[in-house]
Amino acid sequence: MNNKIKVLRENMSLQRLDGMIITNTFNISYILGVKAEGTLIITDKENFFFTDARYIEEVNNTITIDDEIIVIDLANISENDFLGFFENCNKVGIEENDITYSKYQKFIRLFRLKDTVETGNLIEKQRMIKDDEEILNIRKACEITDNCFNHLLNFIKIGMTEQQIAFEIERFFIENGADGLAFDTIVASGENSSKPHAIVTDRRIKSGDAIVIDFGAKYNGYCSDMTRTIFVGNIDEEAKQLYNFVLACQKRASNKIKDGADGQEIAESLEKEFNARGYSLIHALGHGVGINVHENPILSYKRGFMLKENMIVTNEPGIYIPGNLGIRIEDTILVNKLRSEELTKSDKNLIII
Amino acid sequence: MNNKIKVLRENMSLQRLDGMIITNTFNISYILGVKAEGTLIITDKENFFFTDARYIEEVNNTITIDDEIIVIDLANISENDFLGFFENCNKVGIEENDITYSKYQKFIRLFRLKDTVETGNLIEKQRMIKDDEEILNIRKACEITDNCFNHLLNFIKIGMTEQQIAFEIERFFIENGADGLAFDTIVASGENSSKPHAIVTDRRIKSGDAIVIDFGAKYNGYCSDMTRTIFVGNIDEEAKQLYNFVLACQKRASNKIKDGADGQEIAESLEKEFNARGYSLIHALGHGVGINVHENPILSYKRGFMLKENMIVTNEPGIYIPGNLGIRIEDTILVNKLRSEELTKSDKNLIII
Repeated sequence: MNNKIKVLRENMSLQRLDGMIITNTFNISYILGVKAEGTLIITDKENFFFTDARYIEEVNNTITIDDEIIVIDLANISENDFLGFFENCNKVGIEENDITYSKYQKFIRLFRLKDTVETGNLIEKQRMIKDDEEILNIRKACEITDNCFNHLLNFIKIGMTEQQIAFEIERFFIENGADGLAFDTIVASGENSSKPHAIVTDRRIKSGDAIVIDFGAKYNGYCSDMTRTIFVGNIDEEAKQLYNFVLACQKRASNKIKDGADGQEIAESLEKEFNARGYSLIHALGHGVGINVHENPILSYKRGFMLKENMIVTNEPGIYIPGNLGIRIEDTILVNKLRSEELTKSDKNLIII
Repeated sequence: MNNKIKVLRENMSLQRLDGMIITNTFNISYILGVKAEGTLIITDKENFFFTDARYIEEVNNTITIDDEIIVIDLANISENDFLGFFENCNKVGIEENDITYSKYQKFIRLFRLKDTVETGNLIEKQRMIKDDEEILNIRKACEITDNCFNHLLNFIKIGMTEQQIAFEIERFFIENGADGLAFDTIVASGENSSKPHAIVTDRRIKSGDAIVIDFGAKYNGYCSDMTRTIFVGNIDEEAKQLYNFVLACQKRASNKIKDGADGQEIAESLEKEFNARGYSLIHALGHGVGINVHENPILSYKRGFMLKENMIVTNEPGIYIPGNLGIRIEDTILVNKLRSEELTKSDKNLIII
């Protein structure tokens, strides 16, 4: 049986659910292993995926007999056929944060549902723990990202625009086996580097610039996420010290990431180091990475969260001096029993190109 | 007063609505003139936009006193404050195809709503008729697209990959004032050209290829959409005749597009021309273009639809011979009282590069 459905059924039984209607596109592609529009339903005995002609061939090519998912073309099913699916289910879970009001009303009517139950983010929580295949995909996405960074160190030249560098990243990813970008690349140079969520501009790289490059590839539907801050031509003593301070903090946080560690404690301890120098971390320390580049859990001093084996999270402290300089260093990290493994392995010592 | 809200209020009163909750991001950006996450509510007397710190500055910089929209930071409002907004509204419209089940439940509770009413696609329908500013933005997006096509005629060379051409389009758009791509570009060459929804590959351009290029820019949030099919090196007599046949059909359909014309009749008449040669149009003839590249209305032989002045629609017939050749010619067209105006003006006579 599809192991993801097996775990889901266990989680469903903890909530005493007899069935579930899954509408969230990312959760569907998590379970099916392929991106397809439709609705996945888990009934007391079987699993069905309702879709249309556009996706049937690809879905059938991806799932196997072992998945035990029956694919149904909506064109071949009449209103009356829907009555049978949840006949033996009293409590049917819905994804209340995804399903639209009109779809909800339609399903109530079509399936004659007796009792629907809000499931919170049941599958999103399940997705936090990655299986071997997911880890392999993210590992590969990280590897392509590392290779791209090495390439960029030779590619970036004074006079180029941020936009040109961003394009080169996308080109490299696609020509090196990635599906494409995991998210909109950030290339923030000079004064732009102080904006944590900078958008790419046509500013040209100058000598003396810091360049924050925050980028990630998608491979087989799974993301990587890495940031490196590099310097052009020269660096003043103050920036150098700041860089090495952020790096030391990032490494200390990385070393604390392991099964059983509390994400809040790791973020709090980094925040204390920042505060001692007069800085503060103005965004979360990290987040889960998987099908989405931003997933559960969030690593932040605002809430407690126990890390578990086979979670994949980022560690990305940054210091931003408005209008002047920003430094962020980020890795994608696999949580292990004893010690974390950084899946992005690019050099993070101070680099001047 | 904001004219879009004025028209919306007229449409609301036709449905006897006292208020409305707008959650659809595109509908919100249509009314506000800026992309921002939040909820727009229209009450019996006033208009409020609930948002958070990330968007308040930009929204306030975009809207004016005349818009009569009160912007509220969700951080500055308590649960009790919500009670007052719809106090005098019996029937409050919702966007049932957009609002999630959980948001719906939250609003029912917070606003103590008495009666909610499904509004169909009320604002989506309003968006079909473009105002002067919207037409200007789409006109500009089309102009950038035309300039890009001219550039491509010199840029495309034998040996290049489809991907390289697609990148060049994005680069050109961004460096020439567009926000970016209106949608994922299609560059489908040789045998790929026969797939109407081809994805870009690393196939290299060869002599003898047809290349279907379906692309559009976004300018101030508004889209253009154009397709040209060009040939490389040479063209055989059969392909040449097929091209000129599609072109003649496309021109005849363009000439029929005007205020009061029935989209179904235009599509039916083209389908008859196609059938007479043994072909069939396997997708819609056209669609509305605006904030989204695919909007209402749909021009298809499957349903009647009366075109009206200031709608902007595409006209895009195509013939696809599987594994061999595809030819599609598409323009973005402004519907006028007497005669349509093609906003995309690129040469569509047979081009061999």
